[in-house]
This record gives sequence, C-alpha cells and structure tokens, in this order.
Amino acid sequence: MASNDTIVALATATGSGAIAVIRLSGSEAISIVDRAFNGKDLTKQPSHTIHFGTIRDGDEVLDEVLVSLFIAPHSYTKEHVVEISTHNSRYIVERMIQLLIRYGARMAQPGEFTLRAFVNGRMDLSQAEAVADLIASNSAASHQVAMQQMRGGFSSILKQLREQLIQFASLVELELDFSEEDVEFANRSQLKALILEINRVIRKLIASFEQGNVLKNGVPVVIAGRPNVGKSTLLNTLLEEERAIVSDIAGTTRDTIEDEINIGGVMFRFIDTAGIRDTHDIIEAKGVERTREKMKQARLIIYLADPQQDDVEEIQVQIDEVAQLGIPYVVVVNKTDLLRQAHKDALRTLEPMFISAKNNVGVEELKAELLRKVNLHRLDAGDVVVTNIRHVEALRKTEASLQRVLEGIDGAVTSDFLAMDIRQALYHLGEITGSVSTDDLLDNIFSKFCIGK
Amino acid sequence: MASNDTIVALATATGSGAIAVIRLSGSEAISIVDRAFNGKDLTKQPSHTIHFGTIRDGDEVLDEVLVSLFIAPHSYTKEHVVEISTHNSRYIVERMIQLLIRYGARMAQPGEFTLRAFVNGRMDLSQAEAVADLIASNSAASHQVAMQQMRGGFSSILKQLREQLIQFASLVELELDFSEEDVEFANRSQLKALILEINRVIRKLIASFEQGNVLKNGVPVVIAGRPNVGKSTLLNTLLEEERAIVSDIAGTTRDTIEDEINIGGVMFRFIDTAGIRDTHDIIEAKGVERTREKMKQARLIIYLADPQQDDVEEIQVQIDEVAQLGIPYVVVVNKTDLLRQAHKDALRTLEPMFISAKNNVGVEELKAELLRKVNLHRLDAGDVVVTNIRHVEALRKTEASLQRVLEGIDGAVTSDFLAMDIRQALYHLGEITGSVSTDDLLDNIFSKFCIGK
Repeated sequence: MASNDTIVALATATGSGAIAVIRLSGSEAISIVDRAFNGKDLTKQPSHTIHFGTIRDGDEVLDEVLVSLFIAPHSYTKEHVVEISTHNSRYIVERMIQLLIRYGARMAQPGEFTLRAFVNGRMDLSQAEAVADLIASNSAASHQVAMQQMRGGFSSILKQLREQLIQFASLVELELDFSEEDVEFANRSQLKALILEINRVIRKLIASFEQGNVLKNGVPVVIAGRPNVGKSTLLNTLLEEERAIVSDIAGTTRDTIEDEINIGGVMFRFIDTAGIRDTHDIIEAKGVERTREKMKQARLIIYLADPQQDDVEEIQVQIDEVAQLGIPYVVVVNKTDLLRQAHKDALRTLEPMFISAKNNVGVEELKAELLRKVNLHRLDAGDVVVTNIRHVEALRKTEASLQRVLEGIDGAVTSDFLAMDIRQALYHLGEITGSVSTDDLLDNIFSKFCIGK
Repeated sequence: MASNDTIVALATATGSGAIAVIRLSGSEAISIVDRAFNGKDLTKQPSHTIHFGTIRDGDEVLDEVLVSLFIAPHSYTKEHVVEISTHNSRYIVERMIQLLIRYGARMAQPGEFTLRAFVNGRMDLSQAEAVADLIASNSAASHQVAMQQMRGGFSSILKQLREQLIQFASLVELELDFSEEDVEFANRSQLKALILEINRVIRKLIASFEQGNVLKNGVPVVIAGRPNVGKSTLLNTLLEEERAIVSDIAGTTRDTIEDEINIGGVMFRFIDTAGIRDTHDIIEAKGVERTREKMKQARLIIYLADPQQDDVEEIQVQIDEVAQLGIPYVVVVNKTDLLRQAHKDALRTLEPMFISAKNNVGVEELKAELLRKVNLHRLDAGDVVVTNIRHVEALRKTEASLQRVLEGIDGAVTSDFLAMDIRQALYHLGEITGSVSTDDLLDNIFSKFCIGK
C-alpha cells in the first residue's frame, strides 16, 4: 500500500464555484508542478508558502494560479504536497491534471491521500475514518462525534487500555520462558481486575454505538396516519424552517435533504410512508407485514390524526396498532384550530399533542417532544461515542477474548492459553486504530473516500 | 461600489469533494479570522504563508484548517485576503461562515471579489469579465479567448487606440481656448488618418465577434432528418467519444453537456429538433414556421438520410427545403454498410457523406467536415477576438462617433463639434475597459458572477 509515487487529484467539488484546488502528494510533487509552473523556482521555496504564476502546457497558458507548498514531513500525508488553486473551469482542471500526469504524476485512488497520512503515521486508522465522517457530517451532533474521533478522543482511550494490557501480556509471556518452574510474574488478581475494568469501558463504548449511530446517520422517523390528515403539510412545515437556516449559503444542494430536518442539532430522517397510506390496512392481513417492516425501521413514529375525519374510537384503534410495534410514538392531532373545545376535551384520552401543521401552531412543541423521545444523552466535550460498525465489531471481539481470559484465570489454565487470548484481544483492539491492519482492510476503508481526500 | 468592509463567501463548488475554501477580503479579513483561529497569531505573519490550526466557535472545534494569508496589496483584490481550507462538509462551511459573519464579515455579493479587484485597479473591466468567461470555458477555443482577454490582449489594443485618440482630443480642445484666433493645433489630415486606422482596427474587432461568439458559446447544430434515420444514434456515437475523454475526472457533471460535443477544440451544441421529426412537414403550411425558426438558430445543419427508407428523389426534395434556409448544411447518408454499391453510386448526385452511425463508420470524417464547414480561422497566440456583446456594442458606438468626426473634418466643422464627437468615441472605448463606468453597469456585469469570485 505504501507506494511513494506522486498522486494527483481534484480536491474540491465539481460544479459551480470560483476556484478549484488540484492536489499532489509524493516525492516528485514539487518538481512535477515546477516543470509546468512559470514563476519562481518552486524547488527552492520554503514550506507553507504560496506562489503566484502560470501553469503552461508548452507555450499555452492554461491558467494563472496560486501554488501552495508543503514540504515533507510538514504536510497532511507527511510527503511533499502541492496544492494548485485555479479558476474553477472543468476544462482547465482536466487539462492541468492531464498535464501533471504526463509529467509523471498518476491519478489518485479514492482516499489515497488519507491512506498515505495513515501509512506515514500522521493519524491512526480510526482518525482517518473520522475524516470521511467529518466530510459527511450534516448536523451539530454528527459533526461533534466525527471531530472528536478525528482529534483522537476515541484513539487515546483505546491506546490506554491497550498499553495496560500489553504490559500484562508480556509478563504472562515471560512466564512461558519459565514454564517448568511454575512461577507467576503476572499477578492473577490484578490481571483480573484490569480485565474487568477494560471490559467495563468496552461495554460502555459498545453501548454508545446506538446513540453514535443515531448521531451519525440521523433518527429515522415515520409520519403515519390516514390520507389527508396533513402528513405532507407537517413535513413541509418542519422543512421550511430548516431551509431558512441554510438559504444564505449559495448553491447548497437542497434536493437530497428534502426529507431530513435538523432538530436541536440532531438529524431526523423521514422514511417514505407510501405503504401506510391507509392505516386501516394494518388490520387487514394483506399489506400488514410490509407496512410493519417499514415502520420497524423507524426509531420513532409520529401518528397524525384528523378528528374531523375520524372519531376518538377509530383513532384509538389505529394507535393501538402502532403501539404493538414497540417503537416510541407520539400521537398528534392536526387541524386543532378547527376544533371546538368540547371536541378537544374528548380527544384528551388519547394523550395527544395538538397542532396545526398548516398554521405552524404547536410545531415547535412537537419538535421538542421528538428530541425528548429519542432520549439522547447530552454529549459533553469529553464523551466518547462509537459511530462505526467496524469499531463495534472489533470491540465485541475484544470483549469476547477478554471474557475467555477471565474464564482462564478462574479455571487456572496455563500461561500459554492466557497469553493466546490476551494476544487475541490486543489484536482486535489494534484493528480499530490500525496498529494491526491488512491490505484488504485498508482497501475496504479508503475506497469509500472521495477522490482527492 | 468601493466599500471597504470585509466580505466572506465559499469560493469552491458545493457537492462531493475533499476540501472547501472559504475566502475573505477586506481590511479586517485577517483580524476576523484570527479571532476564530487557534494556532499562531495570524496578524503577525507575512504574506503568502499558510498556517495550520483550528477554527473554534467558543470551546467547540469546528475543524482543523489551513489558513492562507495574502496581505494588501499583494492579493487578488489588493485588500487583505484570507483563504480557509477546511474539510468539505456543508455543515462545517455553514457554521464557519456564520461565525465569521458574527465576528464582523458580511456575505459577499456575486462577483464582489472580482469587482474589488477591478475597483482597486488590479484588472480592467474587460479582464474582469474574462474571469467569468474563463470559469465557464469548456473547450480549448473558449478557454483560449477567455485566457487571452483576461491576460489583457484585448485591453492593450484598446488602450493604445485610446491613448492616440486622447492626444488628438487634447490638441483639438486646446484650439477651443484660442477659438477666436482660428488656429489648428491638431493636423486635420493626420487626425483623419488616425481615425481611419482606428476604425479599421475596430471593424476588425467587430468582425471577430461572430467567430468569438462561436468559440465562447459553441456552434449550434441541428441534426435534421425523417424519423428512424438514426439521428439519436449519430448523436450518441459522437457523444460516446467525448465522454471517454472526461471520464477519468471524478464527479464531472455530465447531465448538462449531454448534447454538447467537443470537436477539434470547438464546442458543438445540438439543438432539440423535436419539431422537425418529419421533414415532409416543411412543405406543409402548418408547422413550417416553427421548424424554420428552430433551424435558423443553427449555424450548421446535418441532414441525415436513410436510403432504405426514401429514394433519391424524395431525399433531394428534402435537401432542397433545407438549402432554402441559407444555412451551411452537410448531407449525410446513414446505414451505409447496408447499401449495395449500385445504390451508393445512385446516391452520389446528392454529394453526401456516407456513414454508419451505429458501427462508427465515417464519423471521424463527418467531424472533420463539421469543423471545416464552420470555417473558423485558426487563432494564433496574438489574435484578439471579441466575445462579449457589450464590447461589440461599445465598439459599434465608437465607430459611429468616429464616423461623425470624419464627416466633421470633411465638412470643416468647428473644433468644439469635433471635440465633442472625439470625447464621445473615447467614452465608448472607455466603457469596455472600465475607464468609464457607472454603478449600474458594474452591477449588471458582476451580478452574473458566482458568489465567491
């Protein structure tokens, strides 16, 4: 994986924008750009400086550019890195990359810059993974967990656990050299106490995954209810406010977030409820299973009712159906402004929230209730949350290995068996930070990155 | 227009990409970023240097960033400019811009960075306009004319003409001070020679506009022909090759260029010919006008025929209809691989090109013919081409004013009338480079820029 040739890629997004940045990394990065650059001699400039000039293909000026130099090891990849800031024309970017390839660079693979940063010890594997999470972050919560992981919060805890365990492992392994003398260098009760403590931390990390997953991927919510109770109106009312927040940033793509809203810094993601257009269908045999499957993906259900359409008993039947799913739900009565007080009072047995989606009445209260129902702990700056399924799997394997160590101690097994299980636990812990890694694993992680990162 | 407050905007495109660049310009640019930056004291660093650190909103780390400093006047705008390179997350970019606005920056208007570059004398108006053209350039030809204009090729010619004219204007105006003495400081025959020379250059520039427009906006081509003669297949065959060229650049948006192809560095733009599905319609009264309107927008028509479907006489009738439009056309016989030699020979009276769009036979030759038909002069490095309708209009007005000067000289009008017309000519020439400008004009030009440029 650790090749040292020079890679090049567009590092910024394509589309409408003023500037584009082309990035190179590798031992020849500076000399390759220098060959195309007309201005100062780039090979003689200090690190972290910027130089104005032109990039030329023969006599033809491709663009006036700013070139930023990062001299190894003072760069993201710890190799020579050059960034060329050009006018953002697809044509210019294409021509420049083709030129740089002709001069000896090669097109970077997805994530290859960050892969090099990892391979060259700039960051560990979980930090590298956090870079991708950070780029994908779209809410305060997902941003916070990715940032914390990138800055090593998660890694430092694992490192600590691992170091303590390594110490014991070496003591246990030392016993192997004296196996005929039946000595115990590693105090068994101290080892047991350590492992219990490590497993306590690991279980806490595993437990944080559910919350971490929600923070990273958003809370899936189903808005259920009969046709014309105002489901779309409610969604639009919720979305409208979100749009206002982002509208002052030009070019923000809104198409892909039409069904996501940010409430109190947490993303709520709405699942298509086309299959539950008529909740009466739930009591019919046909269609129930499919609808249930959809609803089961939800972490939260908003049951929206229109009492002009259905009476209290009908609504109660529907709510009972929803309740059977065992997923937290909120009963919401819409079009509240059209209701007389007596009607409203009659509905209170349903313990509903009263809103008017159309007139934006009670919607703020509903948002607060959604946030409360999701029941997230408020994260403090130091809180570590696991968001990555790969990490959780490695933590579970670590826990299982350590469990075998505990059983081994209680069963007074020989040192070699203990040592094997401790090594196994260390291996799985190391997988997370990349202290232990295989090419397949790295390939799998970095191929999910975008090119240029 | 020339406010000195500090503006901020995202300078890179939104969408999938590794990094985003936030740009600030103004007297407070460095101090505003410094307030949010945790690392070195940015206010004490030299120009053209890059600094690693974090951007923080209170205690919260928004991201690890690289900050590039450009100290006035050594920047694009000649003001202090700061560029913040962050991970390309919509959330991070939004939060940072909001933070910088809270610290005293304001959101930039479209083109405001380049407007400041113009106002502060970094470039003239036609160069500033070329920046937008350069970003929009999508072929070798459009790139070349925009680059040449940005680098001042056009401006320097105009500047020369203008200076010579100013010299004469001041001589003529000097005569006004001595109007009672009937002196002539400005030699009339020299003035006449100069104006004839200037008008010759101006007419050449105006004449270059047609070519310039084609190079900038592409060549509109209609592929006409009866249904099922293979029009779409031909377009696809042409497009396929173009796609191969751009495919190694990740994320290149292809949706919007599906009907544009680059032939020999010139963009060919295909116009929707849905209205001429059946060319027999042309002889019918109804629909003829609309179809003709479509075809008249073309600079070139490919008339595609399938001789399995129509005999030579039928095709000839259709070609005659096309010929009446007075637009260059190419007759192309498709599905040539299915034709016997005798049939082929019979078709030669049509002077066609024989292709098989499906099997990619003869398509390269067709491309060469298209390029030849458009009849572009090969541009040399020094050739100046006008691509901007605003410039052409100003040139036409200049020419008209100078024509009046000529008539004035021949009619021996008094110096004050001559001076007025020369001033008028100077005014129009000055409009192009922005020596003369109004807020409305600037507004109109820069509002078409993207934000961040």
